This record gives sequence, C-alpha cells and structure tokens, in this order.
Amino acid sequence: MAVPPPASVGDPLDWVDTPALILDLDAFERNIERMAQAVGASGIRLRPHAKTHKCPEIARRQVAAGAIGVCAQKVSEAEALVDGGVDDVFVSNEIVGARKLERLARLARRARVSVCVDDPQNVIDLDQAAAAAGARLDVLVEVNVGGDRCGVEPCEPVVRLASDVKAAGHLRFAGIQAYHGHAQHLRSVDARRSAIEDAIERVHQTRNALERNGIDCPTVTGAGTGTYPFEMRSGVYNELQPGSYVFMDADYLRNDWSGFLRFEQSLFVLSTVMSRAAPGRAVLDAGMKALSVDSGMPMIAGWPGVTYLQASDEHGQLAIEPEVAGPKLGEKLMLIPGHCDPTVNMHDWYVCVRGGVVEALWPVSARGSGS
Amino acid sequence: MAVPPPASVGDPLDWVDTPALILDLDAFERNIERMAQAVGASGIRLRPHAKTHKCPEIARRQVAAGAIGVCAQKVSEAEALVDGGVDDVFVSNEIVGARKLERLARLARRARVSVCVDDPQNVIDLDQAAAAAGARLDVLVEVNVGGDRCGVEPCEPVVRLASDVKAAGHLRFAGIQAYHGHAQHLRSVDARRSAIEDAIERVHQTRNALERNGIDCPTVTGAGTGTYPFEMRSGVYNELQPGSYVFMDADYLRNDWSGFLRFEQSLFVLSTVMSRAAPGRAVLDAGMKALSVDSGMPMIAGWPGVTYLQASDEHGQLAIEPEVAGPKLGEKLMLIPGHCDPTVNMHDWYVCVRGGVVEALWPVSARGSGS
Repeated sequence: MAVPPPASVGDPLDWVDTPALILDLDAFERNIERMAQAVGASGIRLRPHAKTHKCPEIARRQVAAGAIGVCAQKVSEAEALVDGGVDDVFVSNEIVGARKLERLARLARRARVSVCVDDPQNVIDLDQAAAAAGARLDVLVEVNVGGDRCGVEPCEPVVRLASDVKAAGHLRFAGIQAYHGHAQHLRSVDARRSAIEDAIERVHQTRNALERNGIDCPTVTGAGTGTYPFEMRSGVYNELQPGSYVFMDADYLRNDWSGFLRFEQSLFVLSTVMSRAAPGRAVLDAGMKALSVDSGMPMIAGWPGVTYLQASDEHGQLAIEPEVAGPKLGEKLMLIPGHCDPTVNMHDWYVCVRGGVVEALWPVSARGSGS
Repeated sequence: MAVPPPASVGDPLDWVDTPALILDLDAFERNIERMAQAVGASGIRLRPHAKTHKCPEIARRQVAAGAIGVCAQKVSEAEALVDGGVDDVFVSNEIVGARKLERLARLARRARVSVCVDDPQNVIDLDQAAAAAGARLDVLVEVNVGGDRCGVEPCEPVVRLASDVKAAGHLRFAGIQAYHGHAQHLRSVDARRSAIEDAIERVHQTRNALERNGIDCPTVTGAGTGTYPFEMRSGVYNELQPGSYVFMDADYLRNDWSGFLRFEQSLFVLSTVMSRAAPGRAVLDAGMKALSVDSGMPMIAGWPGVTYLQASDEHGQLAIEPEVAGPKLGEKLMLIPGHCDPTVNMHDWYVCVRGGVVEALWPVSARGSGS
C-alpha cells in the first residue's frame, strides 16, 4: 500500500519518473504569499481550503503565512491535517453517520474543530457524539447562497437551526457557512460578481434575522479563488476559504481575471511520450488515472501546436499540427491539469521542484476516497 | 499514507463507512467462473486485464479459475502483482524511460514478464535493460487494429519490428498485441462485430506477412469485455485479455448484449445521504474523489425515481422525482460507477460483502497514478 515516490531529493526534473505530480516551489510560494498579503491587508481572516492539496505540509505553510487555520471537507482529511500538525480545522461540510461523528468528536479533543449543519437531526447527532467524546464542537449553519447543493435557505431556517445548536449542551454556534461553489468557475468577472452580490444579500438578510432573534453570529465564512475579492469587500464575510489559488488549473485559467490579483500555475503532471507510432500522433503515459478530466483535458506547457486530445485510462492522446515536429519518444512534457483538486487526489506524492531540481517530496497524506 | 479500511470483517454492510468500494462476492465469483468457462471451452488462453482491479488477490483467483496469467498496463502494476504472488504478467503497453525499463527487466528475474513495443529505439532500450539485469524479456509487437493510439500499422511495419526483436540478444519475439479499445464501448452488437472483423483482418494479414518472412508468431492477444466472443471465434487470436467483466459498470450496461453471455454488476460505491436541505434535493458524500465521471454519472441501485445528477469534488447531487419520497438523511445508497477502472483507482480497499456482511478487505495494492 505504500506507493514509492517517483523521484529522490536532488534528482534533476528530467529524471523524475512519470506520471508524477510536480509542484513548482517558486510559483507555489509566491501564490501563498500573495493571497496571505491580499487578505491580510483587508483585515479579515484567511482559512484556505485544504481539500485542494490534502497535504499537512502545505497547510502549515499557509498558517505560517498568516492563515488562522484551514478548511477540510471530510473527517479523514481533518484527521490527516491534525496528525500533520494543524491545530485549527473547519470541516466546511455536513458530517453524517455515527462512525464519522464519533471520529470528528474525538478529533475535537486534540484540535480546534468546527463543522457545518443543515439539518435538525444532524444537530442532535452531533451533540450526542460530542457528549460521548467529552468534547465541545463549534458548529456553523450552512446557508444556501445560490448553489442549491447543501445548506438551508436564508433567514428563518438558519435562525431555527442556530437556535437548535445554541440549545445543545455540547455544541457552540459559531456562525454561518456561505460558500457559492458554482460561482467560482463562471467565466466573466461580471457573472461572478453578480452571483456573489446575490450571495452577499442572502447573508446580510440572514445575519440580520439572527440579530433580530438575539443570536450573535461570530463568523461568516465562504469564498473561493474565483470570487474571494467580492466576499472580502462585502462587509459581511469575515473569513475566506479559497483553495485552488495555491496551484491553479486549466479550468481556472479559462476564467477572465481582469482586475484580479493573478496567481501562477504551480501544479503540473509530468508525463512521458510513450508512443510515436505514426506522424501527427503521440501518446503520453498520463491518462485518467493520473489526471481528472471532469473539467476538460489538460493543457500542455511549452508546446505550441501540440494538444492533449483525449484521455483513456493510462494514455493521453496528443494531436500534433502538421507544421510542428512534436515531442520525441521518451520526451517529458509538463501538463496543466484541467481540475487541480481531483487530480491531486490520484497521486501519493508531490515532487517539489526548484530550479529544475527536486527539493522535497511531500506525501498527499489526506488522499483517498475519504470517509 | 496508510489509509485505514472503511469497515472491519464481520460488519454488516449498513455499518460500512462511506464512501466505500463494495464488492458483491457472489456476483464477482460468478463473473470469474463464467468467463473462465466460456474461454476455457473455446480452447484458447485467458489472460484477464488487471488494470481493472489492481488487486493481486483478484488476479490469483482469476488464475485459480484457469487464466494463464494476467495483463498489467504499468510497471508499477506488474510489480505489485508479482509481489502479490502472480508469476506471469504481460505488460500490454509500451514502457519508455530508463528507470521504468530497469525495473521491468529486474522484475523479469522474478516472474515471467512480457511487454509491448511499437518503436525500434524502444527495442534497443529494452534489450539493453534486459542485458543489464541479466534477464530475458518476451516482447510482443503492438499493431494498430483501428484504435489509432499506440501500435504500428499492420504487416510490414510489424515484420520490421519483429525482426529487430529477434535480432536482439536479450529479447524473445512472443507475438502481437492487437487490442481494439474503442470497439469495446460501441453500443450495438453489429458495430462491435464490424470493428473486430476489421481488426481480425488486419491481424490475419499481419500474421501471414510474418510467416512469409519466416517469423513464427506464437501469441496473438487482445479483446475486452465488449468484444471478446468475436476475437475468441476468429481463428487468429489465441489469447484474450478482458478485464471489466469481473465488475461491470454503468457504461458497459449501456451496451447492447444480445447474444452475449451476461456478466453481473459486482462493484458498487456505497454512499451516505449527507444533506436533505430541500424537498426534491439530496446530496451524497461520494463525488469526483470517489467516482470517475469520465463515462457519465453513476447509476443508483434500487431507487427508481432518484437520479445522480451532478458530481462535484466531494458531493453527488441527486434529483428526486416529485412523486417519490427519496432517501432520508443518513440513508446509504449503492452506486454503480460510470467507469470501473478509474473509479477503483481512487480507493484503497475493496470491502468484500456476502449476504449483507463484510467477509474480507482486499487492498487495491496496485493503485496509484502509476509509473
């Protein structure tokens, strides 16, 4: 079960075995610093989402740069992060089921742990789990700000659940989770701004409803890489949870970023040309088991005229324009994944590279289908 | 890095933590037996593809039922299979790069290992690696039978490469790899038959060309779950390499199987309803990090009127028809993955179930992005 890393520290990049997840440390460090400064200057809190990277080493660097903690999406992720030295994890998701709740409550004895709810029965179950573990959990009510996924509707439904949380003996009402996932990948800046203006209005009304009912709402948290400046300047959000900015991906590169701070592509999948059996055709050794294609095919860095056409399980078929020679058999290409989070989830190691040399190997400790 | 299993032996299915990869042992064992009998009765060899399951335990059962060995698609898979007790592995793919070739050649000292080529330089590199390891490798020339991915064109190009292999001191020409991947998922039986008739014709001409040049071609190997009866009755293929038949998936279920032996769905992803925040809406805890959606969304077993609508990273959004109550919060649903191979690759454990009870836990030992 222990998958060996595809490189050793000190190896030149060209010697790394493929497919391998490559992290360009210079770009990655600039991304971490850039987001920390932008959010830090605004005076509100940064709590980056670790579901993107699933790596305690990266989480610790985000905290060192000023983040107050991180988000996770699964109990298994939160456990791996706490095991890896992170002491404040917000599970920005509902946790349902006795086994998971028991683990979550136990984790709250070792670290500051908070979690979302959108159902009154779940509040009861959380309270019982916390009581059984002798723990106290911070609970945020998730509000539907337009994604129509998890989360109750704004205002009264939030007030009712918040009251349930306040009445529970082993829970503490910590605020509201107001994340708009779909909005992150709307291509135009105007479309993203408009979606978040709607979300801000729902949050505003909800916070007012809580106030009218005498319920203090310490935290309003949400936002992603595609929209965070809007939440940051909203006056109602006081915590931001972008994740993808550390890596970026081909899908985010298709967004219009006019007026936004820019983040650099720092994550790549290194791949080898394993077949050049016909002119105009080349096959890479990175397919659907090394790259998530849910948001489209990967881009190829540095090879104009060469396109990643189609992924099969273990192969990537390239199209090479007639006037282009294309890469040779054995040549290694850097691919920009279509979607960073599920791509990372397929790999066991980050091969961290600086100046063309492997500087570190970081395990993707929180990888997995994730209970 | 050691992801704990989501269940213990003896647990009832309903107690298994989610998301979890579930193997219905009764259906799985019938599938293994059914394919072994069908191919065994034809008098030709069965070499199932282990890229589907990545699990030595399953490979050993296939061999026990009559398979002569298995196929793998990566050196890392072949290593895990040999480590797990399989002594005959055909890497049905080109292996390119010094590090991989060194590992492949070393593996050939511990097991019978064969591999594909479609490039003269790769023949030279394979020969050098085998020489350095003091090993001898069986080599099959891959021929393009219509998939236009890897593989040289039929006839003369195959003769040239086979001659190169025969001239190499540490390689043995073992035959041709003639797999038509795209044909497996053509929906109509006629379309699949027609594609394979073309492939058979190309193989036939190629084998004749080899004969004319005095080159014996011991093995002609190929076929998958969607087309194997055609290759089996072709008179030219003498080895078959289906993989998906052990599990099946939603994409294969969409094929027309008229006149085919039927295999049963044995692989599922167990998932929990984690949110029911609005009528008609439910959210599961299995998204793109637990299910590959490259071939469409999963199907839901046993819930008419409930559809898996959309996958996000950690969520699956269900649509519930108005006249249907739908599953309750905390209820567990069995999903039929859209595509079995890349779904298995996301999980670390098979939770093997019989009669509603966990009977075994098998590690997905060859999981990973896979060098």
